[in-house]
Formats: sequence, C-alpha cells, structure tokens
Amino acid sequence: MSPEFKVTPWEVSGEVDYDVLVERFGTNRIDEALRERMASYGAEHTLLKRNVFYSHRDMNWLLDLYDKGKPFFLYTGRGPSGDTHLGHLMPWIFAKHLQDVFGATIYFQLTDDEKYLFRSDLELEDTRSMAYQNALDFLALGFDPERTRIILDTENIHRLYPLALKVSKRVTFSTAKAVFGFDNSNNIGSIFYTSIQAAPCFIESEMKGENIPCLIPCGIDQDPHFRVARDVAPVLGYYKPALIHNKMFPGLEGGDKMSSSSPETTIYTTDSPKAVKRKVGKAFTGGRVSAEEQRAEGGNPEVCAVFKYKFFLFEEDDAKLDELVSRCRSGDILCGECKADLSAKIIDFLTEHQRRRGEAEAFIGDVTLDGFDW
Amino acid sequence: MSPEFKVTPWEVSGEVDYDVLVERFGTNRIDEALRERMASYGAEHTLLKRNVFYSHRDMNWLLDLYDKGKPFFLYTGRGPSGDTHLGHLMPWIFAKHLQDVFGATIYFQLTDDEKYLFRSDLELEDTRSMAYQNALDFLALGFDPERTRIILDTENIHRLYPLALKVSKRVTFSTAKAVFGFDNSNNIGSIFYTSIQAAPCFIESEMKGENIPCLIPCGIDQDPHFRVARDVAPVLGYYKPALIHNKMFPGLEGGDKMSSSSPETTIYTTDSPKAVKRKVGKAFTGGRVSAEEQRAEGGNPEVCAVFKYKFFLFEEDDAKLDELVSRCRSGDILCGECKADLSAKIIDFLTEHQRRRGEAEAFIGDVTLDGFDW
Repeated sequence: MSPEFKVTPWEVSGEVDYDVLVERFGTNRIDEALRERMASYGAEHTLLKRNVFYSHRDMNWLLDLYDKGKPFFLYTGRGPSGDTHLGHLMPWIFAKHLQDVFGATIYFQLTDDEKYLFRSDLELEDTRSMAYQNALDFLALGFDPERTRIILDTENIHRLYPLALKVSKRVTFSTAKAVFGFDNSNNIGSIFYTSIQAAPCFIESEMKGENIPCLIPCGIDQDPHFRVARDVAPVLGYYKPALIHNKMFPGLEGGDKMSSSSPETTIYTTDSPKAVKRKVGKAFTGGRVSAEEQRAEGGNPEVCAVFKYKFFLFEEDDAKLDELVSRCRSGDILCGECKADLSAKIIDFLTEHQRRRGEAEAFIGDVTLDGFDW
Repeated sequence: MSPEFKVTPWEVSGEVDYDVLVERFGTNRIDEALRERMASYGAEHTLLKRNVFYSHRDMNWLLDLYDKGKPFFLYTGRGPSGDTHLGHLMPWIFAKHLQDVFGATIYFQLTDDEKYLFRSDLELEDTRSMAYQNALDFLALGFDPERTRIILDTENIHRLYPLALKVSKRVTFSTAKAVFGFDNSNNIGSIFYTSIQAAPCFIESEMKGENIPCLIPCGIDQDPHFRVARDVAPVLGYYKPALIHNKMFPGLEGGDKMSSSSPETTIYTTDSPKAVKRKVGKAFTGGRVSAEEQRAEGGNPEVCAVFKYKFFLFEEDDAKLDELVSRCRSGDILCGECKADLSAKIIDFLTEHQRRRGEAEAFIGDVTLDGFDW
C-alpha cells in the first residue's frame, strides 16, 4: 500500500500509480458525471475522454460559477530548462481547447527563476533564452493572441512580487518542508519560489480589481504548488484556483515521464524528420523477439511506448485505436509498420508546428504581460 | 563571558556590550590608525571621533582602492515600519558626510517587503506609505539629488530580483538559520528576504557593467545581512561590500535602542516643539532624588539619556561636552536646565529638518531609481 514512486514538481521517479497519487495529493478523480458535464459545453477532448486528464480540484464549483455568468481565466506554464518536447505540449493542447470552449483569457508563466534556482547547471541567461523558445511552442498551438498573456518571471516580477509576498507571509518553512520535501540544505530562493508560482492564480483578480476564478490545467506533478496557493487564497480574499490534472506523457523508452535528460527517447518540437524516425525506430514496444513469434503470439500494446503515443496524442479516432489494439494482439501488425505510421504522424504534426512556431516570432512581443520587450 | 543580550536585524534586547558584539559578529574595531586615515580625507566626523561609528569590515581595502582612483558607492536603507525617529537619522547623517567627502553616489533602500513580511500587524500599503515618509526624512538631510537614488523594494523589484536570485541560490536554509536564528515557523518570505537586502550591494556594478566597490554605513544590528552578502559576493564575481557600523541610538528611557514601539521615549522627526519638551522632560537622567542632593553629590552623565543625546547628536563641540560632564558631576548644573538646553537644540534641529522635509516632496520623484512615480 506504499508504492515506491515519487512525484514532486521537480522529480518523477518509480512507476507512478495514478490512483494512489489522487489519494496522496487529496485531489478528486474526474468521474463520468463531470466528464459528461464538460462534454455539454463542448469541452470533451480526446485527452479527457481517454482519462489522460483524470484528476481535478473544484471543477464543479468553477462550472457552477460559469453557469451563473461568472467567467474564469486559465493559467498554465513551463519551467524553461531546455527545449520543448511533446510531453510539454499535452497540457497546453488541452488548455487551448479550454480557451476555445470557454472563451477564457490564458496566462502562460515561464519560470526562468525556478529553473535557475533548482538547477545547478543553469544560469539566468540560459533559462531566459530557453523560455523564449518554449513560448514560441506555446503560441504555435494557436492560442488567441487577444486573450493570451505570456509571463516571464524575471520580466514581470513587478506584478508578481507583491502577490508572492502575500502568499509567502502565510506559508511557514514547516509547510514547505511537508509539501515539497525540502530540508535545511535547500537554498532560500527555492524555498520562497512556490510563492511566485502561486502569484498568477490571483493576477487577473488583482489587475481587474474584482475576484475572478482561475482554472489551472497542468501535470499532476505540479499540484503541490497549488495546494499551497489554495490554502492561502481565502485569507487573501481570493477564490481558490481550480485545477484539472493530466498524467505524465511517457518517454519513448517506456518510462512514466518523457524527460529532457534522455534526448534519444524524447521528441523535441524542433526535431527533424530524420531525428523523429531514428528515435521512434528505437522506441520500446510490446513486440516479440522475432517477426515470426509476433505473428504467432501477437504484441502487447499496454506496455508499448509507440501505442502510448498514439493513445495520448497521435490517434484521435477511437475506432482506429481499437482496431490497432486488435491487430497488434492478433499479430496482424508488426512493430516496424506501427512505428513508421507513428513517425509519419509526428512528422506531419511537427512540420505544421514548426511553421506556426516561426510565425509566432512575429507576434510574441504583442502578447507579453505588460508588453515587456522580447 | 556570555552576556545576556541579543542583536539581530529585527531585535535588540538586553544591555548591549558593543565590544562583545564585535567579536560575536567577527567585525573589526575602528582603531586610531583608521580614524586618522579617514580624517586625512576630511572624513572625521563627530560620530567617528566619539566612537559611535566604531566597527567596520574592509574599510582599509576600500580606501586603498579609492587611493588608486577606484571610487566606491554608498548604500544604506530603512525598514519602513513607522515614522522616522532621531535614531534612524544618525547613520544617514554620517552617510551624507561620506557622500560629501568622497563624492559618492548613494542608494537608499526602503524595504517595504521586509517590514510587511516580519510584522504581522502591517499590510504592504502601510509599509509603502511609511516608506514615502521615511524617504522625505532621508532627503531632508541634504543628499546631492544628482548622486542619490531611492529604491523602494516593491517598485524596483525588477532590478533587485535577478541579483537576489543569484544570492539566494548560494544561501541554504542552514546558513539562514545560523545567521538570523530562524526556525521552521518562519515564513518563507522572511527566509528569502535577506537576498533582497543583499541586492543593492551589487546594483551599481550591475548597472554600470563593471565591478564597483560598495560601502554600507549602518547600525551594527544590520551586519548579519551583509555577512551573508559578503560570503556570496566573490562567487558572483563582485567585490565584497565594505561596512562601517554605528552603535544603536538610545531611547529617552535610557535603553540601548530608541524604538518606535515606545512613542513617549522616542523623538520623531515630525514631533512638535511641545511634544519634544514633554518627552525630554520625562527622560531618564543621571540626576539625584532632590536638587539639594544633586548640588551636594553631583549627577552621573554616564547613565543619563539626556547626556547621551548630546554626545550622539546635539553637542558637536568637544570642549563644551567636557565642560558639561564636569558641571554635572560637580552638581553645578541640574537636570532641568540640561533638559531645557537639549529640548531647545532638538527643536532647532527639527524646525529646519521639517522645512527641508517639506521641500523634499517636490523633488522626491526625480531621485527614485529608474524614475518610478512616487
């Protein structure tokens, strides 16, 4: 009953049991009723239907307010420690969908301060330039420029800092230790940092001078930050931010979280078709040791990274996905063919993404918070 | 050998032994050679001659660089938790003297964030408005507007934050605990805060793009912050800031540090002549129980708050001060006369100060860092 896995905003290790995680973090599973409710707004997305977005906090409360005519804003972000990979895009794709359905303003926070504080190998200049690259990937997904604001922590600190101070005054080191697993060897910047990640939860309320609900689509590993923010919110006179959590996007080696530290099992948004083919070609699958054996006994899609990629992002048609499972299990399709199909789909996606990423360079300066010059 | 007094940036209690404090903090006494050296620049001030500024770090190194044509800048500040009193003015008066002698630019930091984080009874709006009042008092002392920059932490955070991040990354919670006496119940903002107070040590270097030495005239109670800053400076490629420390300005009740929490034993810069007379009238003195006894046995200037005020700020003429001591000890002057004399001197000083304080309102906007609008 105490599985050996660890999920914090800075580390995902072991084999993650997402059911246990919901209990550990004290979040709520998205049940059929909530899924249907979201579908009724047109907000059912493949990622929701397939239980990739599977956990939440206060979604029904948020939708009740929305039904009463009280709109909410969206907030998500990225810790700029390297190039963007497909795993980073997943919650943003869902966020884009939520923006379309609910007409919501979205704040996208790039935490150049965080990555500098938590990574001994990075300087502020590094995280800042990575943030720019990450922001292009975010914008390439097609967010409405009129309703999108990019926050770069060190640039927009003037707006974040007073809010962060208010949060930090109500959070003791004891709490930070308990929530994040800090000890006396953590640096004092990293200890303070969660206050900065909490600040955008209240930024729209602060800017508009009225209380506005916030919805945060994010990986479940980020939940601890917002647990802190939620505890403090009522004391500050703000609504608690609502959350909707996704599972981690897997690595090509079959692990639980795609990680930039393993570049050969990670597909970056800037990868060339050749690189995609090479990486997918080496992916871990549920195949057998030989083509003969696989034709005879079939493959195992449940452990297969190639299948997971189709399940998460690259096969939206449920019928086709079911057919793939049958064909794999029956030995009708071999890994080579399946990989070639995935490669082609990723290459199609990235070709279009890279084109739009280039376009974003032209307007990124128009969507920065308070118009900072990028 | 372990006297029962405590000196931290947020608390001064017990009877302070300034000799022990030098050892405890690891600073250096200002010796005769250094005093003479400073006098050679024209920098001998009554506060230095009388050993009120009595401790330092790296003053000789700083002056060696100055002699080689490398100028330094000055940095001091104020935690805006209330009205300015005479004790606050003392290091600023000396800082003004240093500006005049060395032609140095001075940065004056108003830590509205600090006082908000450390005082449960204050909101950010409170500390911000107090900061404005404190800044007027600073400017009233006659700093050269061309070489003076007011920093308000929440306004200038854009410039301070990257420097604070660099400091905070190199300071563990263990260190902060050891230096400031924090424990797990401290809030995470207060734990981070010292990084913000360290930032101005490097601000001129950062703005000018070259390494520029910094001298901090301040109360010795602030030394722990700069011990941290000095430890980190070389790693960041900056000079360690030099310091020159003053003893605490006494309260009218005879205690070691004038404190805003005892308004009747504290003289504020905005006090009326009537209030000054009332407060000085009730001051603790070294007098006897009756005029007769005092004429016969004499008073004790060493414990007398009225004498201390003259010693610190209100009698610059050494001969007159010596004469006062003799007359007091011999019973030639009684407390009433001595108090009336001090009251008159304080009222003269405050009348002029209040006039210049009013004038400062007109130009305070011109001397804010990066021209923030006050």
